[in-house]
Amino acid sequence: MPRYALMVEYDGAPFHGWQRQADGLPSVQQVIEEAAAHLNAGVVPVVGAAGRTDAGVHAEAQVAELDLEADYAPERVREALNFHTRPHPVSILRAARAPEDWSARFACIGRAYRYRILNRRPRPALEAGRVWHVQARLDADAMHEAAQMLLGKHDFSAYRAASCQAKDALRTLDRLDVSRYADAVEFHVEARSFLHHQVRNLVGTLVQVGQGKRPITWPRSVLDSRDRARAGQTAPPEGLTFLAARYAEPLDWV
Amino acid sequence: MPRYALMVEYDGAPFHGWQRQADGLPSVQQVIEEAAAHLNAGVVPVVGAAGRTDAGVHAEAQVAELDLEADYAPERVREALNFHTRPHPVSILRAARAPEDWSARFACIGRAYRYRILNRRPRPALEAGRVWHVQARLDADAMHEAAQMLLGKHDFSAYRAASCQAKDALRTLDRLDVSRYADAVEFHVEARSFLHHQVRNLVGTLVQVGQGKRPITWPRSVLDSRDRARAGQTAPPEGLTFLAARYAEPLDWV
Repeated sequence: MPRYALMVEYDGAPFHGWQRQADGLPSVQQVIEEAAAHLNAGVVPVVGAAGRTDAGVHAEAQVAELDLEADYAPERVREALNFHTRPHPVSILRAARAPEDWSARFACIGRAYRYRILNRRPRPALEAGRVWHVQARLDADAMHEAAQMLLGKHDFSAYRAASCQAKDALRTLDRLDVSRYADAVEFHVEARSFLHHQVRNLVGTLVQVGQGKRPITWPRSVLDSRDRARAGQTAPPEGLTFLAARYAEPLDWV
Repeated sequence: MPRYALMVEYDGAPFHGWQRQADGLPSVQQVIEEAAAHLNAGVVPVVGAAGRTDAGVHAEAQVAELDLEADYAPERVREALNFHTRPHPVSILRAARAPEDWSARFACIGRAYRYRILNRRPRPALEAGRVWHVQARLDADAMHEAAQMLLGKHDFSAYRAASCQAKDALRTLDRLDVSRYADAVEFHVEARSFLHHQVRNLVGTLVQVGQGKRPITWPRSVLDSRDRARAGQTAPPEGLTFLAARYAEPLDWV
């Protein structure tokens, strides 16, 4: 069976996350799988992703894999999926043939996320559902400084969701940059892989530094404690966007 | 009666434009006027705007004026309007006291719009409703070159809507820049004032140059003809955003 890689953009707002829901609630995976069934003699294939994003989380370039019974050109797969995923806010940006043993999830050696805060008094109109609205002025430089102390390989138990199913909490944080752009504060985060809620817990904790409620050294002391109860709130999902997945072997995207 | 200036951000998608509709269809003006009635002993005031945007057109910083019976601090007006405009995607970014004879529309000496095209094969997911989706590759440099021939003071009859109510079609186009940013092509347009559909007609005409269907000199020859029938299509409203209104007298925004 030919395997395909898909690069997918989606607005997370109407979905209960990437993953297909047992109770039939709408998910990105279900939308793509049901579109793919049209290319697969009605048989619904399983579509796996590099990052199983939570409800409300967006993607600019999620990567997924798909097996089909028949051998189609990747252009054809991309076009057909974009036809059948309508009118959902899910768009297949690119497609590629992938090796038969390739996995969007397990072959991925780097994941990048952006978290966006709208940091102003009036509520968002144009960016509603795309940002976390934080009214109190944030010190992005202080957050950036605090973030640099979290880089490298650590036990991130303190920043892990209670529901996290990973075997261990050891992760290597490669990038955690915090920058201000006018009324927005953006976090750019990269690692080989993340724990469940890790990015949102890091953001929620750093925001307490940005508000001046905690010292710059506090997020690091939370990390060292390995105690989830010490970290800040989980930042809301709508500010988070899956930006990119990196693979050792390049794919021939069209 | 104290007069206030309001700077307003809105998502045009759910509205039949800025202007209050005789048939009661939702408009931005109505949302703000009804919110303002809460500050005005229930009396609904009239709110005028610098740019009466069409259905589906967005604003990052529309400017409007509002008269109230009572004298409130501008902060109070801004906060109260943001409370009462919920849950509509309309946000009062700033407010200011304005002179009694000041008009958001007639005192405005410069208006700036952005038009955004998503220029790629797959349909938009994250930018659905915010861009015109043009699949065929556009030559932004050719469009920019053609656009420069339209700058200055001209009779823009060829780029005016049939429904335009302006007394004459003489307008001075100060800026019409076309630039590519990855998969997007953006138009930045500035003038003291515009005719109805002028920006969208300019975009729709320049796109024919970008697609290679017409020479770079064509939009200028359309202008010189003063014949609306010769111009390209009216670009769809969802790609257009009102960016800014300029005034000779600075306002004391809060």
